[in-house]
Amino acid sequence: MTVQEAITTRKSVRSFSDRAVEREKLDQVLEAARMAPSARNLQEWRILVVRDSAARGALVEAAGGQGFVGQAPVILVCCAETNHHLMHCGLKSYPIDVAIAIDHMTLVATELGLGTCWIGKFDPEAVRTVCGIPEEIEVVQLLPLGYPADPAPVSKSRKALDEIVHWERWENTGR
Amino acid sequence: MTVQEAITTRKSVRSFSDRAVEREKLDQVLEAARMAPSARNLQEWRILVVRDSAARGALVEAAGGQGFVGQAPVILVCCAETNHHLMHCGLKSYPIDVAIAIDHMTLVATELGLGTCWIGKFDPEAVRTVCGIPEEIEVVQLLPLGYPADPAPVSKSRKALDEIVHWERWENTGR
Repeated sequence: MTVQEAITTRKSVRSFSDRAVEREKLDQVLEAARMAPSARNLQEWRILVVRDSAARGALVEAAGGQGFVGQAPVILVCCAETNHHLMHCGLKSYPIDVAIAIDHMTLVATELGLGTCWIGKFDPEAVRTVCGIPEEIEVVQLLPLGYPADPAPVSKSRKALDEIVHWERWENTGR
Repeated sequence: MTVQEAITTRKSVRSFSDRAVEREKLDQVLEAARMAPSARNLQEWRILVVRDSAARGALVEAAGGQGFVGQAPVILVCCAETNHHLMHCGLKSYPIDVAIAIDHMTLVATELGLGTCWIGKFDPEAVRTVCGIPEEIEVVQLLPLGYPADPAPVSKSRKALDEIVHWERWENTGR
């Protein structure tokens, strides 16, 4: 699958089949995170792989009762072991760098026929308690991973290109 | 090019050839940003395309004198038009969502034979002044885009998988 195909067909999967994720595919997804770029090559991302059924159920509760999160056979708890490095522009690097690693995982998952969904609705303290994650580790996103119950593509609702692109100077929009 | 190939071969390009970026390829790169997922589908990303030579020179200064940034025929100034939405987990969504859009662009660029480099070293006020960007717009990253002077692949220096992956509970590392 080409990159452009993966980007076009990736969707937020909120219903998963019972089919287990093969270890080889899981490893390919994790490898995609490992290869991500990061500020100063700090590689602050840390990924906790949760497959245990009881733990997934507890993560559903930590995610405000989003049942589909636990329906997935794997939940990737995407974290940062970070010194809260600030880039020169003033932003912390860790949310951006973990996002890059997650994006890599979502696209490789798509290529492998797997589905994911970015989950920012969770209580980080509850997630730490469920998984034994130390206080100093930042929990950035949950990423359920599994085979989609419905593999059909969806059409995405997105702004038009001329609503998001400016040319040469900010005041110049349109094509 | 498959997603895994693009992730493996993408590199930080800090030397660009004189070759112009075709408009069709530029559009494909921008389209990859447009298709990105975002929290609540807010689509806060905004991309300013800078090709003007004088403006690129001024952006080099805003980026602390990183000359290769202006050597690229295109600089994508990656911004957010944001209400500073907080996800339930407590993190702002805009740095993460703009990062997803940028990551999409870097991978499609790789697929098209183009090079990019994530740039977080810049003075956001200076960038705003150069490009006429309003105060309320957040500047997240600069992304120079062009044909690499040296298209040869590089080997990436990365932590081993067992340094970044935990299993079931945080205390369980290794394979």
